Amino acid sequence: MRILGIDPGLQTTGFGVIEADGPRLGYVASGTIRTTGAAAGVATGDLPGRIKILFEGVREVVQTYSPDCAALEIVFVNVNPQSTLLLGQARGAALAALTTSGLTVNEYTALQMKKAVVGHGHAKKEQIQAMVQRLLNLPGLPGKDAADALGLAIMHAHAQTSFAAMSAKGSLARRQHAQFKGTRTY
Amino acid sequence: MRILGIDPGLQTTGFGVIEADGPRLGYVASGTIRTTGAAAGVATGDLPGRIKILFEGVREVVQTYSPDCAALEIVFVNVNPQSTLLLGQARGAALAALTTSGLTVNEYTALQMKKAVVGHGHAKKEQIQAMVQRLLNLPGLPGKDAADALGLAIMHAHAQTSFAAMSAKGSLARRQHAQFKGTRTY
Repeated sequence: MRILGIDPGLQTTGFGVIEADGPRLGYVASGTIRTTGAAAGVATGDLPGRIKILFEGVREVVQTYSPDCAALEIVFVNVNPQSTLLLGQARGAALAALTTSGLTVNEYTALQMKKAVVGHGHAKKEQIQAMVQRLLNLPGLPGKDAADALGLAIMHAHAQTSFAAMSAKGSLARRQHAQFKGTRTY
Repeated sequence: MRILGIDPGLQTTGFGVIEADGPRLGYVASGTIRTTGAAAGVATGDLPGRIKILFEGVREVVQTYSPDCAALEIVFVNVNPQSTLLLGQARGAALAALTTSGLTVNEYTALQMKKAVVGHGHAKKEQIQAMVQRLLNLPGLPGKDAADALGLAIMHAHAQTSFAAMSAKGSLARRQHAQFKGTRTY
């Protein structure tokens, strides 16, 4: 199963693609979609232009790597309400790009991802990068946004494996899977 | 010039299409894209499914009516931060659908729209509906979401007309146009 992880943001959106065969994980690709700076070719204040770049960037990743499903980070309310509104718009564009590509979108919080990848929810960015490098046998540290996105894909691979294992054990599976996924908040 | 107005929301997104020939306005179509209820065929908690319906609904409106440009409402922070996040995601999906359809997206606040349509910023929903009905010679009252969307399209038609008139008067045009558009907040 090929999984695309997406860590959405208006400035930078991380993406990571892995191949999961039961508990075995393989790295396929990762990177960052940027909507600012010279490369993006759009003014910082041009929200429609930036949303377009983000949407088309996610679409391009899907077309290039043909994932079977996606794992998207559940974003949280920011202390600054305007930032919340901007982050929401970025996530909405990423979500539209994924769902209209025909992908099932699985949603996880950063906390769930950290627990799955590092083992606890207080992991720092550097710890996530280091664990993602180890788990996927990468020659170097992935970038921070890419590491988060790869972490989300790994999280989804774990969830699928756990679910399969629990299903094999019978009736408890359904309830435990529900607990495992945690509370869903947008 | 054919203008598509969009009033974005996660539950209901209003759309309105008008034809503007200088100060002359003509009604083309209007309606509501719903992401809840039996017609939508998606569970309320299924955010990816609802975002997909919203995106594809806006795309369908663009394909059906072939507007030349779009006018999208600038949304504001809600008292409930979770609602802000959901509204942001809905607006991001609508924005992605418009920009990736090749349309220029012009952004206006509800306050600007009310001033342009009713004459003051404290107008109630019913007043907007009544004025939109008069301005477009409609046989009946438009729905509330559709009226807001038609109001945004009318707002953009006015802005274009004012801009053209001011341009004809020379150097003041640029500055006055900037004032007219007001402060941009997302």
